[in-house]
Amino acid sequence: MVEEKGSFTLPGEAGYEQLTLKMAEKWGADVIRDCDGTVLSDEITKAGYGIYSTICIIRDHNEWAKKHMSDLQQSFLMSHVVMARDEILTIHLMDGYFEEQFVINSSDDSVKCWEVYDRTTNEKVPNEKWSYEPEAGNVFIQGSIPFHNYTVNFLAYRIWEEISMYNHVTNSWNKEHLMPIDPRSKEAQNYMYQWMEDWCKSHPDTTVVRFTSMFYNFVWIWGSNEKNRYLYSDWGSYDFTVSPKALDDFEKEYGYALTSEDFINQGKLHVTHMPAKKKQRDYMEFTNKFVVEFGKKLVDLVHQYGKKAYVFYDDSWIGVEPYSEHFEEFGFDGLIKCVFSGYEARLCANAKVDTHELRLHPYLFPVGLGGAPTFMEGGNPTLDAKNYWINIRRALLRQPVDRLGLGGYLHLTENFPDFQDYIEELMKEFRKVKAMHKDGSVYTLPCKVAILHSWGKLRSWSLSGHFHETYMHTLIHINEALSGLPVDVCFSDFDDVKNGKLRDFDIVINAGRAGTAWSGGDAWRDATLIAALQKWVYEGGVFLGVEEPSAVEGYDTYFRMANVLGIDKDTGAKVCHGRWQFDVDEKAKELIFPQGAYVPAAENLYLTNPNAKVLVEEDGIPVAVVNDFGKGKGVYLSRFEKNNANNRMLLNLMLYAMGAETEQKFLTNHPDAECAYYPASKKLVVINNSDKALTATVQTNQGTKEFFLKPFETQIVDE
Amino acid sequence: MVEEKGSFTLPGEAGYEQLTLKMAEKWGADVIRDCDGTVLSDEITKAGYGIYSTICIIRDHNEWAKKHMSDLQQSFLMSHVVMARDEILTIHLMDGYFEEQFVINSSDDSVKCWEVYDRTTNEKVPNEKWSYEPEAGNVFIQGSIPFHNYTVNFLAYRIWEEISMYNHVTNSWNKEHLMPIDPRSKEAQNYMYQWMEDWCKSHPDTTVVRFTSMFYNFVWIWGSNEKNRYLYSDWGSYDFTVSPKALDDFEKEYGYALTSEDFINQGKLHVTHMPAKKKQRDYMEFTNKFVVEFGKKLVDLVHQYGKKAYVFYDDSWIGVEPYSEHFEEFGFDGLIKCVFSGYEARLCANAKVDTHELRLHPYLFPVGLGGAPTFMEGGNPTLDAKNYWINIRRALLRQPVDRLGLGGYLHLTENFPDFQDYIEELMKEFRKVKAMHKDGSVYTLPCKVAILHSWGKLRSWSLSGHFHETYMHTLIHINEALSGLPVDVCFSDFDDVKNGKLRDFDIVINAGRAGTAWSGGDAWRDATLIAALQKWVYEGGVFLGVEEPSAVEGYDTYFRMANVLGIDKDTGAKVCHGRWQFDVDEKAKELIFPQGAYVPAAENLYLTNPNAKVLVEEDGIPVAVVNDFGKGKGVYLSRFEKNNANNRMLLNLMLYAMGAETEQKFLTNHPDAECAYYPASKKLVVINNSDKALTATVQTNQGTKEFFLKPFETQIVDE
Repeated sequence: MVEEKGSFTLPGEAGYEQLTLKMAEKWGADVIRDCDGTVLSDEITKAGYGIYSTICIIRDHNEWAKKHMSDLQQSFLMSHVVMARDEILTIHLMDGYFEEQFVINSSDDSVKCWEVYDRTTNEKVPNEKWSYEPEAGNVFIQGSIPFHNYTVNFLAYRIWEEISMYNHVTNSWNKEHLMPIDPRSKEAQNYMYQWMEDWCKSHPDTTVVRFTSMFYNFVWIWGSNEKNRYLYSDWGSYDFTVSPKALDDFEKEYGYALTSEDFINQGKLHVTHMPAKKKQRDYMEFTNKFVVEFGKKLVDLVHQYGKKAYVFYDDSWIGVEPYSEHFEEFGFDGLIKCVFSGYEARLCANAKVDTHELRLHPYLFPVGLGGAPTFMEGGNPTLDAKNYWINIRRALLRQPVDRLGLGGYLHLTENFPDFQDYIEELMKEFRKVKAMHKDGSVYTLPCKVAILHSWGKLRSWSLSGHFHETYMHTLIHINEALSGLPVDVCFSDFDDVKNGKLRDFDIVINAGRAGTAWSGGDAWRDATLIAALQKWVYEGGVFLGVEEPSAVEGYDTYFRMANVLGIDKDTGAKVCHGRWQFDVDEKAKELIFPQGAYVPAAENLYLTNPNAKVLVEEDGIPVAVVNDFGKGKGVYLSRFEKNNANNRMLLNLMLYAMGAETEQKFLTNHPDAECAYYPASKKLVVINNSDKALTATVQTNQGTKEFFLKPFETQIVDE
Repeated sequence: MVEEKGSFTLPGEAGYEQLTLKMAEKWGADVIRDCDGTVLSDEITKAGYGIYSTICIIRDHNEWAKKHMSDLQQSFLMSHVVMARDEILTIHLMDGYFEEQFVINSSDDSVKCWEVYDRTTNEKVPNEKWSYEPEAGNVFIQGSIPFHNYTVNFLAYRIWEEISMYNHVTNSWNKEHLMPIDPRSKEAQNYMYQWMEDWCKSHPDTTVVRFTSMFYNFVWIWGSNEKNRYLYSDWGSYDFTVSPKALDDFEKEYGYALTSEDFINQGKLHVTHMPAKKKQRDYMEFTNKFVVEFGKKLVDLVHQYGKKAYVFYDDSWIGVEPYSEHFEEFGFDGLIKCVFSGYEARLCANAKVDTHELRLHPYLFPVGLGGAPTFMEGGNPTLDAKNYWINIRRALLRQPVDRLGLGGYLHLTENFPDFQDYIEELMKEFRKVKAMHKDGSVYTLPCKVAILHSWGKLRSWSLSGHFHETYMHTLIHINEALSGLPVDVCFSDFDDVKNGKLRDFDIVINAGRAGTAWSGGDAWRDATLIAALQKWVYEGGVFLGVEEPSAVEGYDTYFRMANVLGIDKDTGAKVCHGRWQFDVDEKAKELIFPQGAYVPAAENLYLTNPNAKVLVEEDGIPVAVVNDFGKGKGVYLSRFEKNNANNRMLLNLMLYAMGAETEQKFLTNHPDAECAYYPASKKLVVINNSDKALTATVQTNQGTKEFFLKPFETQIVDE
């Protein structure tokens, strides 16, 4: 049964009551929400819709914060690098940092965590050799070695909550800076709990409390210079959670102490894109448990007031990872994900929570990402919406979510009636697809894919942040491609391989730059892992390596799976070794590569096996290779860049490696078109992922059918 | 005084006596030589010219060799990689190797050196777990771990001397294969010494014995499959010198034993392009001393017969490095270098020996490098000669050699009278330049450059082999550019820096891929080195880093000189760190970059200093940067590719970094033209390094002069 209405969250706006109720009707909303910057009036909240209210529990408490400055959130920072010219050296700690974001925490329990490093030798300077000069904000070092480089690790309070800082700076607001409070102390927890209770009491119309994530923002360290404003920004790292009390609590719980250098890590900090070591994992687990523990108390409180608790997976989501073992313990009723990409839709769809909701783009703002016009002169929000929707739609054909919604200023749509019409149409389409999923699962090829990396399940689908922040990582392109392909996808870590969990899979993908969390780095030193994977491929599996898969220095090959892949990369030591000559296997290439598909050029790759089948070469270098290995196969691509043709190439490549046909039922014959088949309802959905009209055929159980698709079009037909 | 004749070595040819004497007259030869494949008749040898005779002392002794098979030269080989599927495993050792080059040495003193490795764990398999099956040529392993990879290090005799093998195979000869004998045993030495004495007695007309290097060929391991014939080829590595006796002698001398794995190195062997560790350095020194010691006996013998001894620096030159501390001990009278490139001319010119002679290209063969026609239909040997000469000429303007010569079949020039005329002209030009050098040194800018790498002086100018074999290394491009620039050039290693030897230099260049001998690899872990270099730059030096200079993992920066250079490369850990925005300094760029100069694009580079001056960016990445550091400067280029415009750019960049003018006396205003000034004779040489006519001006002490130069032209004028 297709719903006629519902499954939609509308951003309402006081002052535009008539518009709000008109659009709620047009788009079939069942829920109205407020946003950062808008409020709802009684006329709206009493109109019989569900009401979402957004709260960000750690900011907007400046009065309390000012009285409890030691309860502000903190981070370790590393001073800039200073070269000694003499045997004494002064380092001004805050040089280069944004003074409106940070102030030095110079309390005794802070300074005792600080460390000074000689970065030339990479050795810690003994504490008795330096002192802090609070008035000047300097560390003074005695006995420095001339022409060595020094840095200081120190602890700073954060005095401006980053999301509000960003909005403030971007929109030139002239408001008080909101400070982020840290729920780590009992006192802060008591305050926040009481505040939440008061809030619940004073918002009787609210049916759903939407937590703008929980306590800790992703790391976003700002610099003093506008030419390098964002010194460090990682959606997945835990640097904004630390404090002397957190360190003490950690030591009590884990039996060992963390140092400032465990966070600073030579100034590199710990980007999500690099493999985590044990200390980092322990600290993440420790913090995750803390966020869940106190977060659950707030969720329970919301429930006590008869409201639901949804969490918005963005901004302050540290400790709220939906694929953490602890996520279900929060007791959230719903997860809301803002989406640009298919992988984000899958991330939301697969989380263990009752209600999955996507916040679509574009937001109802005058300007969009990167400052381009949206709902203003020069903008084309309908086209923007279509372009985002083709990413999301293919993912939703594979796995459903429960709801969609928008955010922003509703009144901005008034000048864009075609946008209003498009969303109406989109919601009708969404409800149809939702109904088909409810009737029964979508037809999926017998192809189970495991993405293998250091984080495994914890970082399912996303790497860290949005596509435009992670485009330089091959794996996000692969995740995005897979999000809409008719295959099963899981995320595994290296222990999963050693524990035999691959037995359920047909294909393992390992994709990334050497040393990263996505390729795996030092994990590949483990002979047990290599043997388990070689065995698995030898007995019939397909290992698909992209970029620098399984790469680690110190062995006979750089790619530890070189014998499986039939290809390796020379890091310099094999520059005098001969290279196998080869011919491109044009027949296999034609089967696998649709028009427009490509594999980027790369350097220093060479075949390790003369029988490896080269599908693509660039400047004489093999960049796409298939290699027989026992009953299985190794497959290699130098890189992968998502687009319609390459996405289909990836599917074809997997099918080819499994020994299956690249042309089969319920695949289209056009790289810009995809299709999904719902056997229970015998419905076929064919979509045009491009802005050009096209004709595509699909083989069905009833024979081959032809489809004429307008740009961006969705067609839903009976088989 | 310009010589009218002389300084030329002509390849004579029996059967073409008239031609030989005619060309000797035309080209002004003072010496006639034989070649591999030609002989001289009495009519030639008695014509009053000096006579060079080529000998290769280690081959052409098959009769003796067959009776002394254990005196054949040997090498360690690693079997191909075999994955165990079971707890027993058989590896056929010779799989993949060319059976006409190698036979297994299965004697007891050989097999005791063999080792079996589990390459999955990188651990040695205990000797009691394997045995050799000589009939089958297999190693049989018991207790192998399923799905681990195994290899065997074994020792093989070489039964076909590689240069003769190459000529044989290339020219489809049908002659007996010549075996290489190893002078390591007393018996072999006695035989070779006696042979040399007999030879001297039987060749009374020979005035110069030209040793085709000494005993050991550069490594050239051939494979059984034509699609990968050259499994390994390195002009600088010592793998062809080993034997059980060499290992025993080494242990006695150095007090520790080398293992097969010290040579095999996980199958990587030890390419010259990677930094050598202590064991490899010890072994090279050990072998070098041995080659010098026995080589000197042969040279002394030649001298006893009133002949001179020259050495040809190619092929079997292992242990004969002209920049080894021991080279002078040989007592050679001359060094002959075959040259394609300017850096080879400089390599020869600077060696400590009386006579320096260059063997020009093209050789008088029907086909040239890579099989292109030369002295046959479709060939243009005159154009070839001009194109090689523009490389050599600019080097010879900076530093003279004593002689030039040709090789090959003289009669092939008969159909190419323009070639005969061109060589006549070239020799006249050469004699003029030689005379100017004799009058006094060429004018050189006050710019002393040290090339800094792991090998330092030992690998002056050359990396390992010819340009077309090493073009992928940035440094050979730089050496080639420098070979003709008006600056002083030296080669230094890292100890030189620590020992304060930089004080005499203005510029230090470190150029190469991370981890290589040219960049330096682990040498950069030494804080003493970093501090010494930082001090040197801070006090006024210029550090010019190219590609991945000073790069090593494990520190706060990847380029250890990042603070000096103002730029660093992200290996993955800093992908979430902000990047400094920058503008290109167009004014500096214009001063430094002549028309046509460029710097290749690169990935993951970022500024570490907002004040660093970006000269070139590609796709938003800074690829050419100048950074102030104290009184000195860091300069960075992503890569360097030699060509006329880039060569001039390199010079300009060095001058700019030193604070000197990029336009000054005795530099041309055209990137394709160069000039050399000889103050003693007040002669100015202006050359056109291109195949197009051009006009160039030069500022002289007498004002600006204009030159109209034909393609390839040399003009020599009074100032």
